[in-house]
Amino acid sequence: MRGEAGIIALAAADCPRAVLHSTGGGDHSPEVRAVYDDIMATRKVDWINNIWKALATHPPTLARIWSQVKQVMGPGTRLDPLTKELIYIAVSMTNNCEYCIHSHGASARKQGMDDEMFGELSAIVALANQTNRLAIAYQIEVDDKFKPKFA
Amino acid sequence: MRGEAGIIALAAADCPRAVLHSTGGGDHSPEVRAVYDDIMATRKVDWINNIWKALATHPPTLARIWSQVKQVMGPGTRLDPLTKELIYIAVSMTNNCEYCIHSHGASARKQGMDDEMFGELSAIVALANQTNRLAIAYQIEVDDKFKPKFA
Amino acid sequence: MRGEAGIIALAAADCPRAVLHSTGGGDHSPEVRAVYDDIMATRKVDWINNIWKALATHPPTLARIWSQVKQVMGPGTRLDPLTKELIYIAVSMTNNCEYCIHSHGASARKQGMDDEMFGELSAIVALANQTNRLAIAYQIEVDDKFKPKFA
Amino acid sequence: MRGEAGIIALAAADCPRAVLHSTGGGDHSPEVRAVYDDIMATRKVDWINNIWKALATHPPTLARIWSQVKQVMGPGTRLDPLTKELIYIAVSMTNNCEYCIHSHGASARKQGMDDEMFGELSAIVALANQTNRLAIAYQIEVDDKFKPKFA
Amino acid sequence: MRGEAGIIALAAADCPRAVLHSTGGGDHSPEVRAVYDDIMATRKVDWINNIWKALATHPPTLARIWSQVKQVMGPGTRLDPLTKELIYIAVSMTNNCEYCIHSHGASARKQGMDDEMFGELSAIVALANQTNRLAIAYQIEVDDKFKPKFA
Amino acid sequence: MRGEAGIIALAAADCPRAVLHSTGGGDHSPEVRAVYDDIMATRKVDWINNIWKALATHPPTLARIWSQVKQVMGPGTRLDPLTKELIYIAVSMTNNCEYCIHSHGASARKQGMDDEMFGELSAIVALANQTNRLAIAYQIEVDDKFKPKFA
Repeated sequence: MRGEAGIIALAAADCPRAVLHSTGGGDHSPEVRAVYDDIMATRKVDWINNIWKALATHPPTLARIWSQVKQVMGPGTRLDPLTKELIYIAVSMTNNCEYCIHSHGASARKQGMDDEMFGELSAIVALANQTNRLAIAYQIEVDDKFKPKFA
Repeated sequence: MRGEAGIIALAAADCPRAVLHSTGGGDHSPEVRAVYDDIMATRKVDWINNIWKALATHPPTLARIWSQVKQVMGPGTRLDPLTKELIYIAVSMTNNCEYCIHSHGASARKQGMDDEMFGELSAIVALANQTNRLAIAYQIEVDDKFKPKFA
Repeated sequence: MRGEAGIIALAAADCPRAVLHSTGGGDHSPEVRAVYDDIMATRKVDWINNIWKALATHPPTLARIWSQVKQVMGPGTRLDPLTKELIYIAVSMTNNCEYCIHSHGASARKQGMDDEMFGELSAIVALANQTNRLAIAYQIEVDDKFKPKFA
Repeated sequence: MRGEAGIIALAAADCPRAVLHSTGGGDHSPEVRAVYDDIMATRKVDWINNIWKALATHPPTLARIWSQVKQVMGPGTRLDPLTKELIYIAVSMTNNCEYCIHSHGASARKQGMDDEMFGELSAIVALANQTNRLAIAYQIEVDDKFKPKFA
Repeated sequence: MRGEAGIIALAAADCPRAVLHSTGGGDHSPEVRAVYDDIMATRKVDWINNIWKALATHPPTLARIWSQVKQVMGPGTRLDPLTKELIYIAVSMTNNCEYCIHSHGASARKQGMDDEMFGELSAIVALANQTNRLAIAYQIEVDDKFKPKFA
Repeated sequence: MRGEAGIIALAAADCPRAVLHSTGGGDHSPEVRAVYDDIMATRKVDWINNIWKALATHPPTLARIWSQVKQVMGPGTRLDPLTKELIYIAVSMTNNCEYCIHSHGASARKQGMDDEMFGELSAIVALANQTNRLAIAYQIEVDDKFKPKFA
């Protein structure tokens, strides 16, 4: 569904936003264009968000990261799409990644997350960060009953 | 369901395991016993895992943390119990909390998590930790389209 | 107060414990011996704890780190010794540094920290880790009233 | 001391500042108003800082977090108020929480922290972050003498 | 160079060591065997280290992670192999990953890292962790001169 | 090479930029001036970047941190200057220190880092952050073969 026209439309708005590196405008190599096309086709959108533009300064990384995101976050898994986005956001909150909280927050809202679910997510993330430090503070030994048994 | 008999049974195996502090054996104050009873009744188990024994050295913290865990991780929420455990584990993996990975891993398995789901969870946690650092490395600006609009 | 005799006594028990590197036993260079002597004299103890033995594999680091610890954690500051140890432990709990929790926990107990104070310390560390993530989760803007004003 | 008039005054300046979620202006539920009133009465201030406005989008979290902060950071503890704020800031610096550094920095200054004490606090936090990584880099084994003994 | 015989030799010593999950012994699927063979051929070794055995419980992750490690850490890059291992270890020290410090420490030693270089690496990692927190503590604004300029 | 004239030139542009603390303009104590002079002479530049201006609010920390940076990052080491900057940036990316990514990014570019090398650096940092969490998620036991042997 995404093709040449989409790329042309993209190029006009393709101001590089990465603080540290520039893709040099809309003049992409075939390798970069192929990834951009696949991102837009897979997500059924007609624009490229900033992280891919930044990674386009290093095409092997662009291709490798997109390939992973597509596989891990894509269909065909046991966990459903919304649960996967919530897990992603939980990590991003813990790591203080502003970009990732916003980008995956947008994805999660597309999948149905509302303010109440975001509130519950944030509460669990905050609670786990709290209890993690209590377990560490007291250097708690793992209970034998929690350890899996292998034959 | 949990009462005096349960506590007596508990006392026998109540060797303090916290590395840094001791609860002084099975001789608990009424405040601590009340929390222990509530933990066992709520979870329908007849034993107390190590983190509560360690927190019992500071009863206000024991009561406050249990009250939170009970509210946040308990029923009556929009997110289902397994999803909540997966979020909890995602944070614990990111923070490197061995105790919490094991204790909430056990809870998640009770809720139906199998090896494949654990594999998917770990893969998402690892991927988010990777992409978080790329967004930070390149200091990516948040796309306007990702920012929520408020009336 | 610490002199040659102290070092000789030390050598006998000087089994290297660092997992990754060895100091090669009790046969230290004058540079390392000088730091060891200063550590023992400053702290009025007759033994060297493991971190210094590990750092002795790289003498410039041993000298530099000890010099800093001596200056920052030593006397002559506005903050009192116990407060300084509590701050140190708070960081070590947040970073999950088992060695540092134990070593500075021991120092804090020498300065008067008991189980109740440790409980309060752990509770604040855990709470801050929780609220930190809420502030990050919601990407809270700093209130103008919290920003210091400079003439 | 805080009552209806205070809330009315608040509503006028109650522009939601949270980036990700909105409280929808000054039109709060009784549950939220009760927490707001308690915050202002407890702290003897006539305004609500941004984190509470963001948490007001999820009232159970607002109530739960405030209840904890009030208990842990409030009076009646062994550690004094300034020490508690310093510990809080130490965690917030380690976690890179801009909001928390500012909000608890303001609280600590109210409690008497000046530039020199802030300098000492920052120096200890930075030192602990340094030595934590050395202990981890060398995988230092905990000295037996640092381990507490329990009867 | 690696083939059937290698796998047979491997199977005998193939005790699963992952704490949380088991590969079920030496009876691997063709997908897992293919990755194992490629790991051993690429690295010119005749054994599989524990992380791959754990990931073998989720074959898509095993294949995806190995493919990345092979590409990012393999030949054909501007950065030389030892520099790349040092960067890897720097991250692992900062994140407190015991396994990764050991496994990539072994790789770096193969590439020529000795105790003195390890000491320098650890010192830089520790210093950066220290100054990172000072920059955060004081909320330092980035100097204009440090910001890259794009035409 | 740096002397009185340099300091005078500096004073004019010496607007304090630290968010949290002010150096009070160009009127520095001899202790601060001596460090500023040494920074400029060592680096052969005629300006002082913001972190030193902020640390100047606590002169003992200014002197101590500069002394360390000069020793650890300066000449006379086994690791070359660019490798050292890359290690520094790797830590700063992992810790999400915006200031440090920019300041040491500028240093690394002076030492010859181009976009492709930055891309490789970022890719390794991101990969290590990913695999660190997999090792932690599965609680992988360290292989005996990875453990150094000491005589």
